[in-house]
Parts: sequence; C-alpha cells; structure tokens
Amino acid sequence: MNNGIPLTTLERFPDYLNYLRDLGCGDDDKISSGVIAKALGLGEVLVRKDLACTGCAGKPRVGYVVRDLIAALEGALRCDTRKNAVIVGVGGLGSALLAYGGFSKYGIDIVAGFDIDPAKQTEENGKPVLPMEYLSDGVKKYGAALAVICVPASAAQGVCDALVDSGITGILTFAPATLRADSRISVRHMDVAANLAILASGII
Amino acid sequence: MNNGIPLTTLERFPDYLNYLRDLGCGDDDKISSGVIAKALGLGEVLVRKDLACTGCAGKPRVGYVVRDLIAALEGALRCDTRKNAVIVGVGGLGSALLAYGGFSKYGIDIVAGFDIDPAKQTEENGKPVLPMEYLSDGVKKYGAALAVICVPASAAQGVCDALVDSGITGILTFAPATLRADSRISVRHMDVAANLAILASGII
Repeated sequence: MNNGIPLTTLERFPDYLNYLRDLGCGDDDKISSGVIAKALGLGEVLVRKDLACTGCAGKPRVGYVVRDLIAALEGALRCDTRKNAVIVGVGGLGSALLAYGGFSKYGIDIVAGFDIDPAKQTEENGKPVLPMEYLSDGVKKYGAALAVICVPASAAQGVCDALVDSGITGILTFAPATLRADSRISVRHMDVAANLAILASGII
Repeated sequence: MNNGIPLTTLERFPDYLNYLRDLGCGDDDKISSGVIAKALGLGEVLVRKDLACTGCAGKPRVGYVVRDLIAALEGALRCDTRKNAVIVGVGGLGSALLAYGGFSKYGIDIVAGFDIDPAKQTEENGKPVLPMEYLSDGVKKYGAALAVICVPASAAQGVCDALVDSGITGILTFAPATLRADSRISVRHMDVAANLAILASGII
C-alpha cells in the first residue's frame, strides 16, 4: 500500500520517471536534485524529500545514480508487477485507450473492453470488446484488479457498482460524475473538460 | 487570475459543481456543508473553506442556497466566458475529444484540430482538422487561448513550442513527457497511464 509514501509525492513519481528515462543515461551517470528540480519546475527541497521516499539515497556533491533512481521509482510505482485492467465504455475515448501502448511501461496490461452496444462488441486492437453481461466473468477470467470507466456520466455509478461487485478494487473514471464506492475501493477521477476549465480560469 | 483561489481548491470546484447540478434542485432548495462533504468524501471544514472562496455564504442551520452556490462555482470556473480551444494530434484520443460534448458546460468550445497526417486533415464531428502549417493562423483566426496536446511524447515539446509561438497561453497535455514552457504559460498534465499506475500502487 504505497509503503507509506504520501499520495502527493507518489503523483509526482511518473514525472520524475519520464524525465529520467528520457535522459538516456549510461550506467554510471549521476544527476543532482538541483538539475531535476529545475527541469521539472519544482523546488529542490521538495525534490529531495520526494526522492528520499523511494529509498534511493543521493550523495552530497555527487547526486543520484540515474539508473538506481529510475529503478527505485519503478519499484515505488510497481512497474515490475504485472497488472491487468479493463475498459468499460468503448466509445471514442475507450477505444483510444484500448489501442494506447503507453500502459506497458507501468506493467499495466489493458486486457479487454466492455460495452452495451452490440456493434462495438468485436475486437479493438486485438483486444476483445465484450457485452456488459460478461463483466463479472471477464474480470475474474482476466484477473483484473483495475478498471477505467469511459461511459457517460449518467451510467457511471451503475458501472462503478458492477465493477466493485466483480472484484475490481481500483477505478479510474473519466465520467464527469461523483462516484460512491466503499472506502476500500480506490477511485481516481480524470475529467478532461474540468481540467481545461481549471486551466482557463487561471489565464482568462 | 483565479481571484486568489488556491489551485487545490479550484481543482475541487468541478466536483462540487457536478454534484450540485446533478441534484436537480429547485430555486429555493438548500444544502448543508455536511451533506456535501459526505457525498464527496471530503472533510466538512475543508468543504466550508472551499466554498467560502466562491464568495457564496452559507447560513448557520440553513446551509447554502443550491442555485446560488452553483452560480458562484460557475463564476469561479468562468463558465460564462466563452473560450476557444484547439486539439493538436487527432489520433484516437484527439478524435474522441473533438467529438466530446462535455466542454460546453464550462463555456469551452473545441474549434479545430491539427494533425501532420494528410489522411486526418478533413473534418471530425463538424470540426476542421487542419495541417500543422496552419497552426499559427488557425489559433489566431479562431481566437483560441487554450490547446490540448494529444501527440506522442517525442513530438510534444515541438508542438508545445509551436503553440506558445502561436499565442496559446494554456496547454493541457496528455503526452507522457516533461514540457518546458515560459512561466507565463499554464501547463496541466493528464497522463492516463501514470494515473492508473498511481492507483495500482495503492492497491496491489
């Protein structure tokens, strides 16, 4: 359970990881917290605190061994643990996520989609799109613990309930709706329109 | 510029707004901070502090007038100000966003897409998809201040630079890459895979 790493810290780990991976460093290359801080637009003290949570120690006047830091971040984000996820709602967004290759670097496999529309119940990018009636069986068959909700807001709570009943314990939802779920279920909300509105309210 | 509302507070406003709008209340209906807090899984003190930032005052033992609270949240999120946005990269995700109707409730109009692929330079959902060469002209023509980057990570910085050169001041990016931009430019990052990984690291 995150090894006690605060969520706000964990949320910055993918940024560190993307940045460090993109450097394309060799085995012994080192980097200082100051350089990382500047590149990511963060405070240096914060960066040092964040990275201390990975268990990878930097050395004064030397910095961090980039390779070790990448491994520590990957460990904290469980990139080496295979995790299966399903997508519910295979419209434009769900279909794009079924085809997206970027999940594998975190050890996540999108194994199947589910949709109520028979026209969509075929295959997308080699992945089966199944009827909603098979949700529970499919989640068990594929050993999925994670789900992504891409249905309209009005259908999101019903889908959330069905996912929890099927044994899903982590839900990422794109639906602009408040989801109620047992406190043991982790729910993260990505609302594209809301994020654009927050951005706009700061500049206009 | 947000009227001094802290970003973390502003980020919760769409959740309050979705919740209150979905209640379908009449003109005089009232709601207490406690009810809102419970529905959204937040602390009641936090909810009171957040809502105080909207300028809408609740009354002891009466609560907030739901309609007034909705109007105040809409004001803080500038829902009544029309804002034009462009999408760069009309693959699966970009195409889904061009078709998505959920932006209008925040006063945001997605006016055009841009893509380097001539095959995609047609129209999606009645919106023109233009060649990248027209980015600068298009941004000016449509009076767009906002852009959504849906290109692969390797192309994201180049697109970001071109957007800034064209006059865009708010950028929402889905590319898993660290973007460098002038501090006057607001950048928000939505990394779907990273969000699913953060979710997974808490439950597995």
